[in-house]
Amino acid sequence: MEMNHFNQNWESEGPALRVKWHEKADALFPELQHKSVQADSLLELIDDPVAWQGVRAVRTEEASGLSLREWKKGDSLFLDFGEHHVGYFTFSMHLADGCCGSPAALRVLAAELPFELAYKAENFRGGLSQAWIQEEFIKIDVLPGSIRLPRRYACRYLRIDVIATPGALIFDQIEFDTVSTANYLPPAPEYLSALEKEIYTTGCRTLRDCMQTCFEDGPKRDRRLWLGDLYLEAKVNAVTYRNFRLVERCIYLLAANCSENGMLPACAFEHSGMRTRCFIPDYSLLFPALLLEHGKAFGNREIMEEFYPLAVHQANLFQDFLQEDCTLRNTGSYWFFVDHDAKLEKETSEFCIYLFALRNLAELAHLLNREDDKAEFLGNYSHWRGIVRREAMDPDTGILLSGKDRQISEASQIWGVLSGVLDAGEGRRALAEMKKLPDVIRSRNPYQLHYLLEAYCVCGQEEKAYDLIRDYWGGMIRLGADTFWEVFDPDGIAPVLYGDPCLVSACHAWSCTPCLFLQKKGSAPEIC
Amino acid sequence: MEMNHFNQNWESEGPALRVKWHEKADALFPELQHKSVQADSLLELIDDPVAWQGVRAVRTEEASGLSLREWKKGDSLFLDFGEHHVGYFTFSMHLADGCCGSPAALRVLAAELPFELAYKAENFRGGLSQAWIQEEFIKIDVLPGSIRLPRRYACRYLRIDVIATPGALIFDQIEFDTVSTANYLPPAPEYLSALEKEIYTTGCRTLRDCMQTCFEDGPKRDRRLWLGDLYLEAKVNAVTYRNFRLVERCIYLLAANCSENGMLPACAFEHSGMRTRCFIPDYSLLFPALLLEHGKAFGNREIMEEFYPLAVHQANLFQDFLQEDCTLRNTGSYWFFVDHDAKLEKETSEFCIYLFALRNLAELAHLLNREDDKAEFLGNYSHWRGIVRREAMDPDTGILLSGKDRQISEASQIWGVLSGVLDAGEGRRALAEMKKLPDVIRSRNPYQLHYLLEAYCVCGQEEKAYDLIRDYWGGMIRLGADTFWEVFDPDGIAPVLYGDPCLVSACHAWSCTPCLFLQKKGSAPEIC
Repeated sequence: MEMNHFNQNWESEGPALRVKWHEKADALFPELQHKSVQADSLLELIDDPVAWQGVRAVRTEEASGLSLREWKKGDSLFLDFGEHHVGYFTFSMHLADGCCGSPAALRVLAAELPFELAYKAENFRGGLSQAWIQEEFIKIDVLPGSIRLPRRYACRYLRIDVIATPGALIFDQIEFDTVSTANYLPPAPEYLSALEKEIYTTGCRTLRDCMQTCFEDGPKRDRRLWLGDLYLEAKVNAVTYRNFRLVERCIYLLAANCSENGMLPACAFEHSGMRTRCFIPDYSLLFPALLLEHGKAFGNREIMEEFYPLAVHQANLFQDFLQEDCTLRNTGSYWFFVDHDAKLEKETSEFCIYLFALRNLAELAHLLNREDDKAEFLGNYSHWRGIVRREAMDPDTGILLSGKDRQISEASQIWGVLSGVLDAGEGRRALAEMKKLPDVIRSRNPYQLHYLLEAYCVCGQEEKAYDLIRDYWGGMIRLGADTFWEVFDPDGIAPVLYGDPCLVSACHAWSCTPCLFLQKKGSAPEIC
Repeated sequence: MEMNHFNQNWESEGPALRVKWHEKADALFPELQHKSVQADSLLELIDDPVAWQGVRAVRTEEASGLSLREWKKGDSLFLDFGEHHVGYFTFSMHLADGCCGSPAALRVLAAELPFELAYKAENFRGGLSQAWIQEEFIKIDVLPGSIRLPRRYACRYLRIDVIATPGALIFDQIEFDTVSTANYLPPAPEYLSALEKEIYTTGCRTLRDCMQTCFEDGPKRDRRLWLGDLYLEAKVNAVTYRNFRLVERCIYLLAANCSENGMLPACAFEHSGMRTRCFIPDYSLLFPALLLEHGKAFGNREIMEEFYPLAVHQANLFQDFLQEDCTLRNTGSYWFFVDHDAKLEKETSEFCIYLFALRNLAELAHLLNREDDKAEFLGNYSHWRGIVRREAMDPDTGILLSGKDRQISEASQIWGVLSGVLDAGEGRRALAEMKKLPDVIRSRNPYQLHYLLEAYCVCGQEEKAYDLIRDYWGGMIRLGADTFWEVFDPDGIAPVLYGDPCLVSACHAWSCTPCLFLQKKGSAPEIC
């Protein structure tokens, strides 16, 4: 059958396929939409223990008067561009007395959040590259003059420190040439409440700023196509910007970066000279759902045909990990993600995500008239579903447990619901019972909470989904967010990710999904 | 007469003349010669109390192995390009493991001297712009890749600090695209000794690296056309590179930047949007000599005709300062330079430089068949020479004194000789007697010592000139110079200029003049 055929020939056919897929991705390279944005105000920073990350930006004057202000050595200028954007800065400057006897030197710090404006390199404690911090030191040899900074920034705020200047420096204009493949905000549906509208717009802004020449995870940090983020972005894109060509470009980019045994990578770079080493098997298992949902939304059967074998192959590869006692083997150097939480026992979730993939493959097979394949997927599905129920389900509470310590987590219940291991009634019960127990691992980040929204809808508990949206994503809004953050725990306003709070991405694709549910709020409940 | 005519019409004719002169300067914009240079070795820095500025660079390995070395976060790489150059850097890099998951961040420090390689921004104490320090912070988003730094550097050494990198970083190539309008070194005359040859080559290298799109004073700091430096550069250029078009471009640039009353500026910027505010009357007085010597060397009578009125005008303007008691009046906001020494009493030197200008104007007038003008210049000359001898010369020793404290300085004797206030015999005596006295202000910098070389030659003491060249400029060579420095005092190896030792220019036009004397060493003595 198709999937075995693919498997057998990957070694010989893979290299040529990868080249072809990269060419197809390149052919879909999008044109960015540019929009020039000016600062709307000058700011100062205020320490505030109840503000997000402890810092608040306070407007001091309109930016329209900027060209009347003079700046000297040691001065710092804080600008607010009104909302988060992604783009390129051009500074037009002159000297008050006209005489440029030496170069000027500026420190430039682009920031998504006010806290980042206080960044000091010597205090950086991050485990990821310090180069992610949007800090630059630039020199300008000739004034009057304009300088366009060559790198792209994701920010709402801009700080400029005057390190050296031959005289009183005047910024005639600071232009933010913003870019996106969808450089606009669609209107929020009329039937939403004011808060919901704000959440909707913030989600759209988040997605807009992640839509560059690929769907990025975060335009400040990573700036990269991740399969897990793409799946969620494609869902929201389908009901908002509907840029399906960009989704297809991303599918080709991921496919072009398959491993030598045909596993789809967790992420991919756009430049063909850069290959990823990052593989997350539970991300690869999302590919059948991505392909299916994209194919249906765009009405493109051709791409489903083209990638059906690769989608099947992801599930086949995952079989190597599965053991009949609901544990994983041969996990080797792979990163099993599910969620950021280091304490999370992931095995049950992984099994459920595999089952989720089999269900999607069965539907794909059906759409593509491969009924034999469909039957095989469903046979497999039935086999492994039985094992999960037998091995992982607490017979008394109906809650799914995970790992040798039989850990109870929200993630296990969510994926139990989404995979169909739990039916709607079992799911409602497990999600409710779980919360009453001590030491449960709750989901605390937008990626996993998206799947909780999905699970509520599958269980027929749409109102719980909307409550969670208003509470959790609304909580970011109440803390000043104008794009949704990579991490957010309402119980902690000073998140540290990868060792340094300045590494947190404040515009992160996987957080934009409330739009999906809010867009559909006016429709029949079954579509979410 | 011509000079009065010019004076009367400057206000009405000046603006149009300035525009015309700038157009002529632009028409002479030169093509730079490019030459690609590779590093020849890797270095380490050694503190050494007897080295220039206390730091020595020690070769550790050949740079040919650079592409085999891997660099990680926190590493520092020191390169030696073998000799001082001016140009642009291109870094070609890749990662050992090929996967570029984040940007790389580098600190780059280009240095003329080993000491500068230890520069730390937080220790900067300079009174001039910190932006002169050739320090950059760059980020590279995509690896493998090449990045060409946009700014020009003057250096022999390059330090690269790896601030952040996604993996082990490999420099495949670091190319130095060097530029000059005369990007080569002429062979030293055969009749010179080994040391003299080295001095000659070092002088040529200094001039080469200052010959950019104008004659710059120092390609690291200032990077600008100064009239005082140009005069000396034009002299050396006439016997080495003979790029007379570049001299004429500089004459037009200076003329295009005249003040509203027609005074030539001390310096000029190449960009027409940048005007200088810096006027040094004793530099302006060098213009007649510059015009005369250039016109004779290039055989261009036309430019002498064109600028004769402006040359005359400089002397006319200076008359406003002169008083019959050999002191200056109305000095206002002008900077009277002569030499860097803050203790130097300059009045006698200034009078002598005025007389030097009158002698040059008389010769110009004669060459241009303006015998009436010549007679007037010589009349003036005779009048003011008498005043200087009467007011400033010590009747017992024949030494020229200056200022109300009757200060004895080498500068006064030098300009006394060059102006003809002292004849050859008087000059020999004054220069010799002066040295025997206590508290004499000696000349301690290459600019003023050039004029001492000239004075020795005028006095018929060529051997003293060659001794001084071997001793003073040879002293720099013995301390490792491969271009001649802006300041050098053999008694102090750690010069601080403008508040910070890193601001000292190590390739400075006004220090290149030994070439002039060494080139002529084989000829008859009277030509120097």
